This record gives sequence, C-alpha cells and structure tokens, in this order.
Amino acid sequence: MPEIADKTIEITLPDGSTQTHPAGTTGREIAESIGAGLARDALAIKVNGEVRDLGRPITEDAEVEILTWDDEEGKETFWHSSAHLMAEALQELYPEVKFTIGPPIDQGFYYDVDLGDRSLSADELEEIEEKMLELARRDAEYERYEVSKDDAIRYYEEEGNEYKLELIEDLEEGEISFYEQGEFTDLCRGPHIPSTGRIKAPKLLSVAGAYWRGDESNPQLTRIYGISFPKQKLLEDFLERRRLAKERDHRKLGKELDLFTFDTETVGPGLPMWLPKGTVLRETLRDFLREEQVKQGYEPVCTPHIGRLDLYRTSGHYPHYEEDQFPPMVTGQKEDGDEEDGYLLKPMNCPHHVKIYQNDHHSYRDLPVRLAEFGTVYRQEQTGELGGLTRVRGFTQDDAHIFCTPEQVKGEFIDVIDLTLKVLDALDFEEFEAQISLRDPEDTEKYVGREALWDQAEQDIREAVAETDLDAHEEPGEAAFYGPKLDFMVEDALGRAWQLGTIQVDYNLPERFELTYVDENDERRRPVMIHRAPFGSLERFIGVLIEHCGGNFPTWLAPVQVQIIPVGDDFVEYAEEVAATLRQEDVRARIDTSDETVGYKIREAETQKIPYMLVVGGDEEEDGTVSVRSHDAGQQGTVPVDAFVEDLRPQLHPTLD
Amino acid sequence: MPEIADKTIEITLPDGSTQTHPAGTTGREIAESIGAGLARDALAIKVNGEVRDLGRPITEDAEVEILTWDDEEGKETFWHSSAHLMAEALQELYPEVKFTIGPPIDQGFYYDVDLGDRSLSADELEEIEEKMLELARRDAEYERYEVSKDDAIRYYEEEGNEYKLELIEDLEEGEISFYEQGEFTDLCRGPHIPSTGRIKAPKLLSVAGAYWRGDESNPQLTRIYGISFPKQKLLEDFLERRRLAKERDHRKLGKELDLFTFDTETVGPGLPMWLPKGTVLRETLRDFLREEQVKQGYEPVCTPHIGRLDLYRTSGHYPHYEEDQFPPMVTGQKEDGDEEDGYLLKPMNCPHHVKIYQNDHHSYRDLPVRLAEFGTVYRQEQTGELGGLTRVRGFTQDDAHIFCTPEQVKGEFIDVIDLTLKVLDALDFEEFEAQISLRDPEDTEKYVGREALWDQAEQDIREAVAETDLDAHEEPGEAAFYGPKLDFMVEDALGRAWQLGTIQVDYNLPERFELTYVDENDERRRPVMIHRAPFGSLERFIGVLIEHCGGNFPTWLAPVQVQIIPVGDDFVEYAEEVAATLRQEDVRARIDTSDETVGYKIREAETQKIPYMLVVGGDEEEDGTVSVRSHDAGQQGTVPVDAFVEDLRPQLHPTLD
Repeated sequence: MPEIADKTIEITLPDGSTQTHPAGTTGREIAESIGAGLARDALAIKVNGEVRDLGRPITEDAEVEILTWDDEEGKETFWHSSAHLMAEALQELYPEVKFTIGPPIDQGFYYDVDLGDRSLSADELEEIEEKMLELARRDAEYERYEVSKDDAIRYYEEEGNEYKLELIEDLEEGEISFYEQGEFTDLCRGPHIPSTGRIKAPKLLSVAGAYWRGDESNPQLTRIYGISFPKQKLLEDFLERRRLAKERDHRKLGKELDLFTFDTETVGPGLPMWLPKGTVLRETLRDFLREEQVKQGYEPVCTPHIGRLDLYRTSGHYPHYEEDQFPPMVTGQKEDGDEEDGYLLKPMNCPHHVKIYQNDHHSYRDLPVRLAEFGTVYRQEQTGELGGLTRVRGFTQDDAHIFCTPEQVKGEFIDVIDLTLKVLDALDFEEFEAQISLRDPEDTEKYVGREALWDQAEQDIREAVAETDLDAHEEPGEAAFYGPKLDFMVEDALGRAWQLGTIQVDYNLPERFELTYVDENDERRRPVMIHRAPFGSLERFIGVLIEHCGGNFPTWLAPVQVQIIPVGDDFVEYAEEVAATLRQEDVRARIDTSDETVGYKIREAETQKIPYMLVVGGDEEEDGTVSVRSHDAGQQGTVPVDAFVEDLRPQLHPTLD
Repeated sequence: MPEIADKTIEITLPDGSTQTHPAGTTGREIAESIGAGLARDALAIKVNGEVRDLGRPITEDAEVEILTWDDEEGKETFWHSSAHLMAEALQELYPEVKFTIGPPIDQGFYYDVDLGDRSLSADELEEIEEKMLELARRDAEYERYEVSKDDAIRYYEEEGNEYKLELIEDLEEGEISFYEQGEFTDLCRGPHIPSTGRIKAPKLLSVAGAYWRGDESNPQLTRIYGISFPKQKLLEDFLERRRLAKERDHRKLGKELDLFTFDTETVGPGLPMWLPKGTVLRETLRDFLREEQVKQGYEPVCTPHIGRLDLYRTSGHYPHYEEDQFPPMVTGQKEDGDEEDGYLLKPMNCPHHVKIYQNDHHSYRDLPVRLAEFGTVYRQEQTGELGGLTRVRGFTQDDAHIFCTPEQVKGEFIDVIDLTLKVLDALDFEEFEAQISLRDPEDTEKYVGREALWDQAEQDIREAVAETDLDAHEEPGEAAFYGPKLDFMVEDALGRAWQLGTIQVDYNLPERFELTYVDENDERRRPVMIHRAPFGSLERFIGVLIEHCGGNFPTWLAPVQVQIIPVGDDFVEYAEEVAATLRQEDVRARIDTSDETVGYKIREAETQKIPYMLVVGGDEEEDGTVSVRSHDAGQQGTVPVDAFVEDLRPQLHPTLD
C-alpha cells in the first residue's frame, strides 16, 4: 500500500463540517476526534453511503456518519454481530453444529443452523444465552480478513459445511471475507461492531423450522430468533413492550372479545367472518364515516362484487395483475349471442365507480362528483403473508372516488386530509405523519399523465399538507405510475407505525375509460380522478385500532356499552326496566342473568372490557338507582338511572373537533 | 252408446248439493238448471277436476263446477278460444299462413304463426282485430270432434303444415281431437267456450319473434300476443291498468329518478349498480329493518362473499346446483400443503352463518341464536329471465338464520310474521296473503327430517298464522325437501301479486353440518334452523315498491326529501341557511341553483317526485319563512322555517303500529 501514509483525505461529517485526516484513518479515530462519548457509543461507520467496520482504513475523501444504537443501521450491525456471538456460543455447546446464514432482521436477528436431529428446549436456549454473555464479557474483537475463493472453499471443506460451500459457489473471487471473534470464524460480508463486549443483554426469543434456501425439498434447519441490546434496561423495555403487544394482539383480543373468526379449512384463509360484536364495531365505524362523508358532499353508491373481464381489461387490472386476484369465473356460455368470457371478483371498486360516472353526462358545474362505497374487494394474497386482520384476502375499503377538474385537486386534498384527521382524532390516534410520494425525477418516462399536470398536482399536495398543518415528508420515486399520492402513517399506543389511509391522484383510469366533462367553453375535457380511503380498509383499521386501545374501545364504539348485573334472580325484572330505559337512548345494554356470583359477573364484564357495569339489587330497585362501575375508573357510586343516562349521553357519539 | 238414455247420474255442485240428471247431460243443461244468469255467463265446466266444453255429455256421477269469467280456468278457456278466433281472422286475411301453437297465457293469449317473410304493422294488427270482431259477431260454435291419427295427418298433409304434423307425431291414437268454428279447423285438445259471440272485446297487443319449439336452429315464427274480454268495459279497465303499470314500470322510473343502472356489456347482465339516490333507498330500508331486527334480538354478522368449494360440498349446494351458480374460481395452487381446489361466489348466506354458529358451543339457554346479515349473493339466472330489479344475478337478501329448539319454532314464526307485517305496513302495502307450503302427503319419503318434527312444525306454522290473523292458505306438496315454509304474497297498488318475504324451516343443514346444542339434561341435540327474509331481497323489494307507489316514496324514504328553490341568485344564501337548518334535523335537502325559471324548477322537482318544494325569495328571507309546495297536495302556503320542520319531523321516520 504505497503512499498511503503520506496522503491526507478530507472527511465530511453529517453537519457539513470537514476534517482532514491521513489516508488510512479509521472510523474509530474519526469518532475519537469528535468526542470520547461518541467513540464509546460508535458501532459502525457509514462511508459514502456504505456501512463499514469502525476499524477499516478509509483511503479516499469521504462523507461519513458515525453509527450508534440510535441509527437503524447501527442496530442492524449490532444484531448481525450478535448473530455471530450466538453462533460462537452454539459452537461451544454443540460442536457438531453447521452454520448457514444469520442475518439481522427488523427486530433482532436469527441464525439458521443444522443441528441434525436435535431440537432445542427453553432451558437450552437459556444456556445458550448464558454462554453468549460469558463470551461477550471476554470482549473479543470482530476481525475482518479477506480470503481467496480457494482458501474459503478449503476452510469449509475441512469443516464439512456443505451450506457455506454452496454460498461460496455464488461469490466472485475478490469479494469474499471472513470475520472472526474469539474462537468463531464465519464467512461474512460484514460489517460488524468493534467487539463482543458491547453486547450486554442478549435474549433468545424462539425456535422455528426453516428450509435451507426456503425450499421445501431441502433439509430442514433450526432457526433461532434472538435480540440483543447494549444495556440491560433496553432489553427490559423491549420485553415489556413485547408483553404488552402480545396482550394487545388483535388476533388474541379478537377471540377473547368475540369480534371475528376465521375458518381456513372451509371458508378460506384470510377471509374473516365478523361475529355479532365485531359487526357492531364495523357498522358503527362505517356509519360514523358515512355520515361525515355525506356532510362533505360524498354520495354513497352500491356496486356488484363482480364485473366482466372486459371491464378489467379496459381498466388494465386484467390480465396484468392476474396473480394477485382470485381466478376468473369462466362460464364459456354464450349470452346474447356473444361469447361470455367470464367474470372477475372485484379487486378494487374503481372501475365500477367509473361506470357510474359514465352513466351521466357531466358539466364542470357538477364537479367534483364524489362517489363513496364501503366496497368489499378480494385479492389473492399469499397465505404465508396472511395474519389476523392486518393482511387479508377479503376486505372492505372505505373507498371513494372523486372526479374533479385539475383545478379542484388541492381543495379536495385539503378536505380529505381534514376528514382523515377528524376520523383519527375521534379514535384517539394522536401521532401520525404523512408521506408524499412523488415522481422519480430520474425516470419521468414511466408515468402516465402530462408533466404539467403532475407538477401542479405535486405542488397542490404540498400546499394542502402545509395548509392543514400535517406533519409530512416527501419521497421522490414512490409515486404510482398513475399519479402522486399521500399516505398516512399512524402510530399506535405502543409506538408502532401503521400505514392506514391513502389519497391518490389518478391520471390513468380517466384516460383508459375516456372520461369527460364539458368545461366553461363547451369543450370536452378529461377529469382527474382521486382515490381515497381514510381508514384504508375496515379490517386493517380495526386490527390496528384493537391493538391501539388494547380492546378498550371508546364507549360510542364498544360492542356492549353497559352490562347490567342483577344481584339475584329477584332483580332481573328491575334490570330489564333499566335496560329498556337505556335502549330507548340507543345504548347497547345487556343483562347478565347467569347463575354466577356478582363478583364473578363483574370480573367477566371487566374481561369483556365493557365500559360500564350497573349492579342492581333491592336498594337500587327501591330508589330507582344503579350502582355504577366503570371499566376505566372502577367504582363510581350509586346514582339515579336518569343521572347515569345523562352522564353517558355525550359518550355515545364520537367527539369531533 | 247403449243404455245411456236410461241411466241417471248424480251431479254434485260446489256447495255440496246434488242433482240427478240423465246420463249424457251437458254442462250447458246443468247451468240452465241452476239459473238463466249462470247459463248466460257459463264458459266451461269442470268435471271431476277436468275442464271441459259445456256441450260435452257427462256420462258418470261427477262433482262439477260451472266456470265463468270470474274463474281463472274460465278466463283461460276464453283466451284459448280467442286464440282460435284470431287464427280464423289470420286465415281469412293471409291465406298462406301456417299455424303452430296458440295457448292462453297469464294475461291473454298468443299464436305462433308462420307468415313467411311478412311482418305485421300496427295497422295490420288493427285489421286483424276488426276481422276478429266481425267473425265473433257471427257467433259460430266451437265444435269438437275426435279424429284418428291417420285422418289428422292426412288433413295437415293437405294443408301443407309441417308444424302440426310434427305435433301429431307425438300424440297417441285415440287422444287426438280437432276443434272447428266457422271456417277454421285446428288440432286442439280443448276445451273451448260455447261460441265466438262471447268474445266482445279483442285486443292485439304486440308482435314478437319466436323460434319453433324455442330452438334457435328452427325457423323463426311470428308470435302475436292478444287479450280479449266478454265486455268492452273490461278491456278499457285492462288498458288503463296497463298504462298505469307502464308508467310505474320500475325500469322506467329507475332511470327517470336516477335510482339504478345496468351495464350489461362491461359489468354484466342482471348486476344493478345503485346510483346515489337509489343507494339512499337501499340504505334507508336496510337501516330501518336492521333497527327493528336488533329490537327483536337479532345479531348482525358480516361474512365474506366467497367460500371454499368444500363448504358448499358439505352444504349440498355444490355441485348439486352448479348450473344456477357462477362458475367456481379454481386456482390449482397448493396452499398450506393442501391442494387448493377453488372458491365459489356465494349463492346464499346460510353456510357462512352455520360456520358462525359453530364458532361457539351452545346451550339451550343461548337459543334462539338469530344471525342477521344483509348479504349479497350471486346466482347465474338465465339472461332471458332477467328484467330490471325483479330478477337479477346479484342481490342483497335481508337474510337471517334462527337456530332454535324444536319447541321454539312457533314463537319464532310469530315474531317473524309480526316483523314482516310491520315492515309491509310501514311501506303502505295493505293487501297480502300467505301461503303455507306443506309436505306432499302422497310422497313423504322425499323429505329430510323426522316425521314427528314435520308434523309439529306444520302445526306450529298454522297456529302462528292463526294467532297473527294472517290471511293464509295451505299448499300441500309445495314444501321444500328440507322443511315447510311460509311465503308472503303482496298485492301492489295495481292489484298485482308479488312473492316477497319468506320464512322456511330447515332440517337439512343442521344435519349436514352436524350442528348441536346441549339441552337441559346435558345431552347433545340438533337445533332447527329457520331461514327468513321479510323483504326477500332489497332489489326485488325495491322494484316492487317503486311500482307500488309509482316512485312517490313516503317522505322518510325519499332520496331527496326537500328541494329548496331560490327565486333568484340573490336568495341562494338564504336557501343555504334553510338547508342547513333542515340538515341539522337529518333532512335530505337540496338547493336548485340552476339558471332556470321558478316554474321550470318546480316542474323539475315534481318530475323527480320530491315530497316538498320550498320556494324562497325576498319576502321569505325577510320573514324567515318558506313557501311550501307538496308533491302530493300542491301549494301549502308560507310558514316559518321552524313550523315547516315541526310538521315534517313525524314524516322522517316510518310509522309503526
């Protein structure tokens, strides 16, 4: 490496400041030059966009960024190194183990290993964890060295590891590196953290089966999932969040609260059936949004769940997206003299709404036309991707299509943003941000629609976002080919982000269906179409909502709002009187007439997360009162029935700003 | 015919009284013996259940009934004879005509004739009518004679009529008869009225093409539709009713009032798309029924529109009713290791509701479980049978399934009858009767379910009908194989009967899906399932409703309830104030801001059958009033806005007894 020692390079930091270093300086040295704290926290370094080991020499001018635990890429590196640490522990405990691949994932890491016939118990996982900690305390450095393909092959031939040999086959000479820490060596592209000592709190989470390279015909491996942290406290927080998330898992709560069910065998995977209580949720949300939409000038319509293949040929959805859809229903019958070539279960509502728009002539004076439908659509998601309500094969979009002039786009965006924020606010979602998806400036060819329209629409969205004070960021290149869009990311009570609502400009369907309106000068013009769904879909929204509120729905949404608990059979009649009074006010009230004790009935109602319990006995009957217990706030005292109704009334409707 | 003259026979009349006649007496003689009036009106006679010419001798003891215009079979005979009269007229006017078949139909008759290349104009139809009248005035008798097959063949060979020859081929020797009146002879089984003079008022209605024997590969014939009456006044009434029915045709009104549309080419035949105004109708009816059902203890559920083929194999709907359903969606993909063999678009909601019932264990204490869903189902009706909303391929049933103990059947029927009558009453249907469909006592083998259960259920239905004062008749043999049922026939404002709601007992699905509940003795029992739909389907019901009220919906149902008409642009602002006040009360109000005159705007609102028009100008603005015009009752005077709202309020909800 001639001349390196003499050369200096310019290092640009994220804040734009620059430093001069001798060529061959390392990330560690740069971190130290900035401060001892940062050097202590540094996990890796990003050099001109590439994440690298802190110890690798930097030989050219570079923009760099020191990565710590607070950076996604810092965490990734940390978890990748933790996978190597786990591998080292496994190698000590099970010398016969063969390693395959061990990447970081969204939350932690895994390693797929061949343990022969051995299966791992929970105790054994703990043992591995302890071994990891023991090894970590030795604080061994992760050392990188490049090897020739021949050397790499020779190494794994000696090890007898056919998996790594297969991996090496696909690599090019010159791009092969090994990493070594303590007694463990692994074929690995890196990067890694400086040393194992940083890993203070490893936790192995679960074991699953996995086929080598995901292929069922290959041998089955053992996949060990784990996570790790640089501080014990962080692990504890993680485990607590995980416990909460498990407790709030909408699949679990859906079952416990009798909201929905699946029957994969006979009805089909990803096709939820809504039980009575879940149906109350659905319909209450639907009615709430429908009412708000009508106030904003939307017109509900209702269209069939199927259409002829020709409809989808025109829209471009068939055969283009064939693999995402349920297969067509092909009759082969002749109808009206034509060959009837089949129907498609609708994967979206747009083509039908376009047909409704086309049912009439439109003048600029009629626009915008806003057609709304809670339309159930079906898509053939892969079964592996199905999970509870957040990814399903049949779902009801809170869909609407706005047909407007190009000049009306901004105003419509503002109204839809307002509506969406109103809806999210009514459901106590407080944290959300939006993503504006724009054209890829490098590749404007692939988009449909005139450039001037795109420019205007992108500007309109920016302005609408600004005027509604929405927290938003822009993502160039993320627009659909048919138009720019605005997506809502909502954070739930556990701080997890979900993509829910969406507003999308569409220049494509108006073109394909040759939509028109007549403008001020009596000329035919093309309207713009806006797709929008504030919830996204009822299924996904309810799934997220359940986890957000942990099944403690606001009273106006609770499937059962009031549980009346008579202290004995003698008071059932009075309970029914109270129930009748409540139902008069459209309160969803039930009476628990079971033979259980009052204590048991209260526990039962608490488990069902019913907002109010009214215990009634002799005193209450005599005085016309109820003893009120709130699920949120416990015992509330005894009040006249009317007073309870009065207190309840404002909770029966969502609070709207 | 030896000895006939000497023999006497006993004739039993419908009132049970008997007469003795010489053998060989005729219907005409019996009618004369009863009274001259009856003899004058008599058209045919029913002898031991068989309708015959009045002139045919009766040779055995018999129960008889003299048939007049007031009997369905009397009308049929009259129209059949009119078809012969029309044929005679055609023969005189177009000697080259060849006759095929000419039956009576529901309303009148037709004759399919071969006129070569000739097509008939409206003028020509009138000419035929006149010829019919001229011939009728000759009062020729319809004479019957039996002929041998050879003679019949010889006759039509001479006539050169290949159609009749084909018909004769299928007949047996000894069952062939000809009828002759005036110059016209026809192969015909009869019976006929005594003479052409009875036909006082013939009317030819339309001409259509029809293939010989309904087969497209056969020659096309001309089908001439007509009707006829024994009095001119009856024809006039008929034409008036027909005019009204045309005016009220829901297909015509559906278009004029912007309620729904079809797009046969791209969406598909029989698949209505509901426009905004029609959607208001649908949703208002749905919400109304949903609310009533919840009060009666129904629990709304929501299920997907598809299910795996296995679900329908278990239910027995597939492949059994395959030709009535849309073809399955077959993927051929493997899922979860299983061969995924396909999905069916649901032809009914029952199997999904059964699955929901099975999602939980049930004790006798939980029953009845009443699962309700406005479920959209799809059936592949033949396109020829599709017409507007009354027969469609996709329709939303106001479906519910009640799972109950055998002892609860009667109570459930009473509740459903109550609900149905309430619904029909709220929509101003005043005339209805019900049909109880029972087992065929001759063939009890073909039914599913134990005999004792059937006996009980049939008795339960009878008692429920009696206790609810429902006007009902019994039809043995009309039950489905799976259970007895009760159907509602509703008469619309034009006196036409429609089959709408239905309540059906089902012993089959509980058996096929092995449904159970645990009884008082902790033993597993089979519940009974009741299918019920008070509307039948929203589509059919709305179709009938439109014709019943001629598009003049009750105010609570009207898509637009109030049209506000400012007398000029200056008063649009005040119109908006009035609209806001109305919308506060959930009134569906619109403002007509077009540039038209007030007169034009009023006519427009009248055409749209909007219940109330509020004209507002300077005086109204100054006084805070509106000038009210009612679609029903015309000008109502000027009143304060609040007073109008007060008057309107009770009309915003259906009146329930």
